[in-house]
Amino acid sequence: MYFLGIDLGGTTIKGGIVDKTGNILTQGQVPTRAEAGAEAVLAQIENLTKELKARVGISDGQLRGAGIGIPGSVDVEKGLVRLAPNLHWRNFPLRGKLEKLLGIPVVLDNDAHVAALGEMWQGAGRDYQDILMITIGTGIGSAVILNGQVHRGIFGYGAEMGHVKVEPHGPLCECGGRGCLETLASATAIVRQARQELERGRPSLLRGKETLEARDVLVAAGQGDELAREVLNRAAGYLGIALANAVLLIGPTVVILGGGVAQAGEVILGPLKERFEEALGPWQIKPLPLLLAQLGNKAGFVGAAYLALSFLRGEGK
Amino acid sequence: MYFLGIDLGGTTIKGGIVDKTGNILTQGQVPTRAEAGAEAVLAQIENLTKELKARVGISDGQLRGAGIGIPGSVDVEKGLVRLAPNLHWRNFPLRGKLEKLLGIPVVLDNDAHVAALGEMWQGAGRDYQDILMITIGTGIGSAVILNGQVHRGIFGYGAEMGHVKVEPHGPLCECGGRGCLETLASATAIVRQARQELERGRPSLLRGKETLEARDVLVAAGQGDELAREVLNRAAGYLGIALANAVLLIGPTVVILGGGVAQAGEVILGPLKERFEEALGPWQIKPLPLLLAQLGNKAGFVGAAYLALSFLRGEGK
Repeated sequence: MYFLGIDLGGTTIKGGIVDKTGNILTQGQVPTRAEAGAEAVLAQIENLTKELKARVGISDGQLRGAGIGIPGSVDVEKGLVRLAPNLHWRNFPLRGKLEKLLGIPVVLDNDAHVAALGEMWQGAGRDYQDILMITIGTGIGSAVILNGQVHRGIFGYGAEMGHVKVEPHGPLCECGGRGCLETLASATAIVRQARQELERGRPSLLRGKETLEARDVLVAAGQGDELAREVLNRAAGYLGIALANAVLLIGPTVVILGGGVAQAGEVILGPLKERFEEALGPWQIKPLPLLLAQLGNKAGFVGAAYLALSFLRGEGK
Repeated sequence: MYFLGIDLGGTTIKGGIVDKTGNILTQGQVPTRAEAGAEAVLAQIENLTKELKARVGISDGQLRGAGIGIPGSVDVEKGLVRLAPNLHWRNFPLRGKLEKLLGIPVVLDNDAHVAALGEMWQGAGRDYQDILMITIGTGIGSAVILNGQVHRGIFGYGAEMGHVKVEPHGPLCECGGRGCLETLASATAIVRQARQELERGRPSLLRGKETLEARDVLVAAGQGDELAREVLNRAAGYLGIALANAVLLIGPTVVILGGGVAQAGEVILGPLKERFEEALGPWQIKPLPLLLAQLGNKAGFVGAAYLALSFLRGEGK
């Protein structure tokens, strides 16, 4: 009994075949080709699936279902991609189309949700059933898992922590809101803030770089660069507060941090944890574990395979 | 089949006998006498219960159980009041003591939780199962109900919206945090901010009042007083943002506003709704109803009676 997990990103499709105990039999990736249109993307998913199946010699009957993580909002019940800006999709009936193409049951969910399921199944969340996961990348994704199930709430897209307002007079976000966490603490925000500080003429190791990436800021901070440290401290402070606020509302048993920014270590985790503990202080009965995600970019397809598995078990809703 | 609901406040104990359809047979109140110690408070609960039972001529066998709302944090499973500052209680085994005294099963919960259950059963939340309720009074209480059950999370005390940080550099809260919603938008905060504005020498209808209460600020704002309006706008803005943030994380199907401040009408609801809609804007698929609580100070004992009822049905955990 095997399951296909697909992590459909804006530039790359990652996939893997996973057994019911979470072992990865094989994994691979292909370009998304979003610019070539939806049919091209579907063909890429089909190609990847065929390649993965051929590699491990799995027959049609052995592959029971597929789960897919989508970079956007999903109507899980209808199998519809409501909005995926990276793919230029709106109300796209992906489930039906893929079921025809692959000949197996397909379940869709948001990419942050499947990543959290992956971490719960095989990663940092293995010992937990009530999880708050935040993924800090170009944007900020999040997921809440309660009793082992993704909590979706009324909107169907689940927790939108990237757009929680943490600074009432903060910068304007693309969503139209002000002071959204994403505008203050994503990789994009870190780069923007570093640029602003550089423009003020402050000395920094970052000066003179042609293209500035969040990674550069993280590295410079690790080397003691003051400008970089200040920028990260600020971002980490907002992350700590937003996470503490979410914990006060949701009460998870663990917080998992995913994405490249979180993996940079103490330069970001130190101030984040400090602010988190400070904000949560008297409300904590015992310190809440704040763990780094363990599966890296496998979390998506592993969680997507789990989604298919749990759906076929009848737990998928 | 009747249930006793008790709303144990710092100064007053309210209670009622309610049938399984939510009809209030009788209700009453006695002073809490918290300063006279826990035994005195227990005696007051017993007295009120006897009085209520005698009034409607209910025999011992007909009263199946009692629910009690506590102004503090409660260990529901252990029947323990963990901390109730107003009552000077810490780790007080209220359930056991009351069960002996009253001879019926007793269930405890936090007062904001039972008020939300009351509104769900008989008030503004009647048509909903997934509710975010916030009560704006001296402090700020909150409750999250998912699938008709209080969501407690890891800490057991449920949502602590009063201590969500909405202004990173805001005033220091008694909890040790900075910019907690309670320090910016409770009745206490409204009075404090009005006082600060008055001290700056600004003209206002509030000038010269011996004792200033939140009610005075609300009334003055209704009369067009600029200082009062400004103070309320600010508080309402924070409430709107905090509620929108909570909605993004939890996705309830309704938001219910309780407490005297919310009942003051448009002077507070207008700016609150405006900020709420603005913050939630693009994330709302359809406008989320934001309703006023309907049961007033009956919500506590009605919800407490419901707690007893649902507990005895085996749904109470």
